[in-house]
Amino acid sequence: MPDFTKAAIIGGGVIGGGWVARFALNGIDVAVFDPDPEAPRKIGEVYANAERALRALCVAPLPKAGTITYANSIAEAVDGAQWIQESVSEVLALKHKVFAEVQAVAPDTLIGSSTSGFKPSELQQGATNPASILVAHPFNPVYLLPLVELVPSAATGADILEFAQSVLPPLGMQPLVVRKEIDAHIADRFLEAVWREALWLVKDGIATTEEIDDAIRFGFGLRWAQMGLFETYRVAGGEAGMKHFMAQFGPCLTFPWTKLMDVPEFTEELVDLIAGQSDAQSGRYSIRELERIRDDNLVGILQALKVKPWGAGETLAAYEKQLREASFDRREEQHDYTKSLPLYNARVLPEWVDYNGHMTEFRYLHVFGDATDAFLTYIGMDSAYMARGRSIYTVESHIRHIQEIASGKQLKLETQLLGYDEKRVRLSHVMREAETGALLATGEHMLLSVDTHAGKATPLEDPVSSSLSRIWDGGQKNLTAPDFAGRAIRDI
Amino acid sequence: MPDFTKAAIIGGGVIGGGWVARFALNGIDVAVFDPDPEAPRKIGEVYANAERALRALCVAPLPKAGTITYANSIAEAVDGAQWIQESVSEVLALKHKVFAEVQAVAPDTLIGSSTSGFKPSELQQGATNPASILVAHPFNPVYLLPLVELVPSAATGADILEFAQSVLPPLGMQPLVVRKEIDAHIADRFLEAVWREALWLVKDGIATTEEIDDAIRFGFGLRWAQMGLFETYRVAGGEAGMKHFMAQFGPCLTFPWTKLMDVPEFTEELVDLIAGQSDAQSGRYSIRELERIRDDNLVGILQALKVKPWGAGETLAAYEKQLREASFDRREEQHDYTKSLPLYNARVLPEWVDYNGHMTEFRYLHVFGDATDAFLTYIGMDSAYMARGRSIYTVESHIRHIQEIASGKQLKLETQLLGYDEKRVRLSHVMREAETGALLATGEHMLLSVDTHAGKATPLEDPVSSSLSRIWDGGQKNLTAPDFAGRAIRDI
Repeated sequence: MPDFTKAAIIGGGVIGGGWVARFALNGIDVAVFDPDPEAPRKIGEVYANAERALRALCVAPLPKAGTITYANSIAEAVDGAQWIQESVSEVLALKHKVFAEVQAVAPDTLIGSSTSGFKPSELQQGATNPASILVAHPFNPVYLLPLVELVPSAATGADILEFAQSVLPPLGMQPLVVRKEIDAHIADRFLEAVWREALWLVKDGIATTEEIDDAIRFGFGLRWAQMGLFETYRVAGGEAGMKHFMAQFGPCLTFPWTKLMDVPEFTEELVDLIAGQSDAQSGRYSIRELERIRDDNLVGILQALKVKPWGAGETLAAYEKQLREASFDRREEQHDYTKSLPLYNARVLPEWVDYNGHMTEFRYLHVFGDATDAFLTYIGMDSAYMARGRSIYTVESHIRHIQEIASGKQLKLETQLLGYDEKRVRLSHVMREAETGALLATGEHMLLSVDTHAGKATPLEDPVSSSLSRIWDGGQKNLTAPDFAGRAIRDI
Repeated sequence: MPDFTKAAIIGGGVIGGGWVARFALNGIDVAVFDPDPEAPRKIGEVYANAERALRALCVAPLPKAGTITYANSIAEAVDGAQWIQESVSEVLALKHKVFAEVQAVAPDTLIGSSTSGFKPSELQQGATNPASILVAHPFNPVYLLPLVELVPSAATGADILEFAQSVLPPLGMQPLVVRKEIDAHIADRFLEAVWREALWLVKDGIATTEEIDDAIRFGFGLRWAQMGLFETYRVAGGEAGMKHFMAQFGPCLTFPWTKLMDVPEFTEELVDLIAGQSDAQSGRYSIRELERIRDDNLVGILQALKVKPWGAGETLAAYEKQLREASFDRREEQHDYTKSLPLYNARVLPEWVDYNGHMTEFRYLHVFGDATDAFLTYIGMDSAYMARGRSIYTVESHIRHIQEIASGKQLKLETQLLGYDEKRVRLSHVMREAETGALLATGEHMLLSVDTHAGKATPLEDPVSSSLSRIWDGGQKNLTAPDFAGRAIRDI
């Protein structure tokens, strides 16, 4: 992957804030320029939602987050950035002004525009260096939805498009190169068509906003999340396939099945009608609540699609694989083996909390399991090890849930190697509150080395076995076993 | 619920076959009329896919399936049916002919038409009894997607519409009454608009069928599966909400963002172009394979939406609740206390699975924790008990992870009371694969009675304490403790 360490975000609204979160949570430093004094607060709220959602989305650990700074000028923001993303209002003159300011100091740096509708050739008009400008159109929420439409014009440099295509997938995004520039690119042409049809249906009193949403989300919306339009119809054609489907529904093109020969007049009255219906439909939720509901649903849908994996779930699977491998690469930090090992920290997420306001029982094992994963990564159980058909499974766990734990608490884990033999590893974890050091829970775990192809136990291999002896002989063998180790649940 | 025991299906294609499966798998007897000699084979294949998908979808048990018979005439098929569903080709004269044959013998029985485009008033032309005819437009796959657009005309009887609205939800379907009849109802107007726009994009060489599908399924398709159009935009408006969104995108109505002022000519060449692109995109899968992939994804998406529950997930939750209650009614309420108690079943959800494709370590405790909750509910720790400031917390857990568990597996839990005293309860759970009875994991748990106001241990109270003695003295005290109970993790 080419060098990508800093991004500049010009315009920090819903879309700009989403880019900030996507970049920063993937370890990229971000500088923001937005003259709105409220921008840091608004972006902070988007970032908090994004962090919550991404941590729930990924089984794999996220990298150390990049820093977010607020610049006083465009020149300051773009200094040192390899990607400059423009997300200002959809006013062409304003975008041209931003590009001129950017290119006065950074004429060769990629400028991606979040524009929904303008073509790259329009964006490039009057630019110092048109070659570095392209459309990079994301979808809200930018930190969860994979799609980015990359639209070059003939004047866009091949190196710029290539750079964009190479850096987005490691961020969990899915670039779609639009080969011929066109107003509204591809996806928004459909959104616009549906939007215009929907305005007619509301205006003509056929359906309310809620009825229209229900007509989508209880039916074809569930299909489109995974297959889009054509593949859905290919299946709908049944055994006879696509040609049959086309033959059946082709003639409908002449039927009055849409009102799209015409555009509804966008009056104050129509705006009030729609805003009023939308209030009746969803007004009981704040926008932030709706965002979290949407994000939770998206996380669930993306994870469901990861099972096959299929579509956006395939993007997620590739993203997670790469995150895991990146975390393997961070394992070089040396530790003092005469003490227990500080390999893992965690934060109690809101969705880990039960109706009593405390961390749910099974999340204790969630944290201990992640701490075990951190230990395994540390001793060299990486993708190369697993590719050889070797893995290490937890076969037994003994947990003491000592204290209730509230949402948002920062936890620190201390791990001790209690022993190992040819095929087994015995570990303990102590969970403490990071701030006070208070003891919250303890875990003792037996792990078994497994041949995943043969499905049976097998001796540990290098580098795992040599790491274990280095840790053991380096000091852990001289540590006293914690008092909870080797203990059973008492009879009553 | 009104009496609904038999349905008649006229026309057994993809949609008619889907109706057969939806009805029969929910315990309704079905008679099919379709002159195609291949109909039984085709419907049998749809039914097999449907059974597989519905059993995966629902945690709750399905009722005994209805019988499926193939009639030699429409008159034979509709005899004794309470619901007649017409799913023949989209040719108005053919539909009129079917209705006339039906109404010659069953003039008062509900006739639902699966038509995508015709208005009910068009369907009713020349009918013996227009009052019993309405549009009941489902979405493919009919056995999984909840939406049914119910479209009455002014001539449709109120009792007919009411009957339709009352019998669909118990089948897991979501009726949407379209209050003013219109060509193509609501959902298909959007599908038609998108279809027309998509044909232009392919014809003009802007995008291939695969690129168009990707533009949908990696982006807005994931949003529409849960919120549809307007609620998505309400959230996208950010803090400023719907009016802000409208103000921002209203002016785009005058921009050339769709080509829908015009309709592409439906030439042989265009059909070949699209069919060819679709083959290149998905030709490596058979239609049946694609159907199963689609169904697995839909099951995952619907289950993901059930977590909140939200949208189609709310429909699923209500459907399951009713299935569970119906199955509970079919079961003896008393348990035999001389055996371990079968109080809880679970299904391994896609998001419970790690990168190896197995249930993640901590989900074992998730399942055991839920089984503990089921036990606590069973012994009377209900909302009244908790409202008194009394609760019961798990303070210690010992788990043996014996077997890997794959996504989708159905689990059954057996719970044994190992002992209790004034403040404590000791339990074991055994987790087995429901189908094979294979042992997957064991759990031993110590629970403590807590005064949640004072934050300290307190004696157990009635009805919990009397339930415990009834279970203990009723037989559990004579059971042998399982071999894993009271055992510690061994030293190595």
